[in-house]
Amino acid sequence: MAPQLTDRSRRKREAILEAATDLFLTREYVGTSMDEVAAAAGVSKQTVYKHFGDKESLFRAIALSSVQEVSGPLRARIAAVAEADDVGAALLELARSYLTAVVQPEVLRRRQLVIREAGRFPDVASTYHDGAPRLTIAALAEAFARLAERGELAVSEPSRAATHFAFLLVGEPLDTAMFRGVVPGRGPGELAETADEAVRVFLAAYRPERNSPGSDTAS
Amino acid sequence: MAPQLTDRSRRKREAILEAATDLFLTREYVGTSMDEVAAAAGVSKQTVYKHFGDKESLFRAIALSSVQEVSGPLRARIAAVAEADDVGAALLELARSYLTAVVQPEVLRRRQLVIREAGRFPDVASTYHDGAPRLTIAALAEAFARLAERGELAVSEPSRAATHFAFLLVGEPLDTAMFRGVVPGRGPGELAETADEAVRVFLAAYRPERNSPGSDTAS
Repeated sequence: MAPQLTDRSRRKREAILEAATDLFLTREYVGTSMDEVAAAAGVSKQTVYKHFGDKESLFRAIALSSVQEVSGPLRARIAAVAEADDVGAALLELARSYLTAVVQPEVLRRRQLVIREAGRFPDVASTYHDGAPRLTIAALAEAFARLAERGELAVSEPSRAATHFAFLLVGEPLDTAMFRGVVPGRGPGELAETADEAVRVFLAAYRPERNSPGSDTAS
Repeated sequence: MAPQLTDRSRRKREAILEAATDLFLTREYVGTSMDEVAAAAGVSKQTVYKHFGDKESLFRAIALSSVQEVSGPLRARIAAVAEADDVGAALLELARSYLTAVVQPEVLRRRQLVIREAGRFPDVASTYHDGAPRLTIAALAEAFARLAERGELAVSEPSRAATHFAFLLVGEPLDTAMFRGVVPGRGPGELAETADEAVRVFLAAYRPERNSPGSDTAS
């Protein structure tokens, strides 16, 4: 297969995924036909079937594409924080990129779709939940355990600390998107501020006490 | 109308709401008929129509019943915290009752239903979001502003502090329920621990610095 054809094929695949996400969100899974997906994506019905087999496989491909695209890179960043020299700075940078990654419109829309169709496809919802939020929180827990070992954080239950970090940071924007859909308006300034404040609260609770005057010094 | 009949009528209404929630969650709104609701509730179709008019009104009644039942009492508790003598103890008590209220199976199921059908009924999702989470956070913000005025909290942005409090506390259980449905297993001990730890983190970030050595010993 020539590289040009592969590119074209990939573009078609992306167009189908995007058109199907739109239709599944506006007309529901049950109310969407493969004909409509093909028309909205500007491809033939045969092309849709060639790429995705059937409607259910198409739904599954959409739902799970975020898990790899977003969670993989994020976990690599989290692992790096565990060994960072300047832990405060590394957490701030992580928080900003974590928040920016999850509020991408395509990521929010897929998440919304998974949750909306959780009754019909409970296994997809569980797989998404395990692969995206839970795996991220597990990676954070591992990093925080390592930072506790290094004396950089005071964390006795890494998994709880990881949950606190995650929900201080992404809880409200994700929740709002589930009720309201993807609304434009959070600029990079607002995102950075949200991230910085989440890290501030997290560190207030989980930074080890050092020999500053007035605080109990760790022995 | 005799009181007995009113009671019976109320019981029927509750039975219809519960049966319809079940059906809407398992077969989706679009796949549920009023006949099925009547059969599942053990009442006549006429009774369902008499109480709720039509399927859409029935959906709206279910979706919005939590808003009043849960948010009203919660806001009263929040207002009381603003004037409490022992703010730490009052926040702990508030956190436990807030968390307990929102993880009730019926509340989670209705929330799930609102989010699942947000494409079909965006106005219901917005009304729920405004009336339940947002109004609770607004009430928290008001209480925290008052506590800052009293010198009991160090809060410069009450609305952000309120969001932190809410998502430290209820973020993870609500999110998990949206993906997994209502799974049994969080006992009162786990809920109390979740609540206590959320308050600990919140106070670490938002308690004003004091000069007394005892100020950071509460736990």
